[in-house]
Amino acid sequence: MPTLTPIEHPARETLDLATVLHALSDPVRLRIVAGLARGDDPRTCGSFVLPVTKSTCTHHFKVLREAGVIHQRQEGTARLNELRRDDLDARFPGLLDSVLASAAG
Amino acid sequence: MPTLTPIEHPARETLDLATVLHALSDPVRLRIVAGLARGDDPRTCGSFVLPVTKSTCTHHFKVLREAGVIHQRQEGTARLNELRRDDLDARFPGLLDSVLASAAG
Repeated sequence: MPTLTPIEHPARETLDLATVLHALSDPVRLRIVAGLARGDDPRTCGSFVLPVTKSTCTHHFKVLREAGVIHQRQEGTARLNELRRDDLDARFPGLLDSVLASAAG
Repeated sequence: MPTLTPIEHPARETLDLATVLHALSDPVRLRIVAGLARGDDPRTCGSFVLPVTKSTCTHHFKVLREAGVIHQRQEGTARLNELRRDDLDARFPGLLDSVLASAAG
């Protein structure tokens, strides 16, 4: 069985406002976050129709994960992505909802 | 009388969410915005105690102005800065308040 590099996530209490805002400050990443917010099921990178290459897409998911906006886990060959809504709401009340509403408007 | 370069501001309806989030995604700029939000009076750059040089400070105010987060006007030798709270609240309801609450928390 191959050894996988563990996927690291910042703990809820270490989430940083400026870092989260930076992760959200890109049109493609806003679309990814809005897409994840619309459903409850984790989604793969490839399930998003985005105007960027696969490697750019991978980069955007990494920025979101490292900021603590999304959680990623490996399932077989698929990397599944979920919004860390509870963590974001706990640390920055109202922020995600206002961003999502503005992104949709 | 010297001709001053006009200070340009984006119109309310052209404010862009990703650009505003980027302007807010810096610890120093968050401090500036929080400082402007605490009072009603316009403030000069020099009235802020910030851990950066004057030119870096000027740059941060420019980023905030160009994103539409603050309004700047020249009064004699002073450049006065004000938060564009009404414009931000109209375009991105709840965003500024949640950012300010999180920045203060």
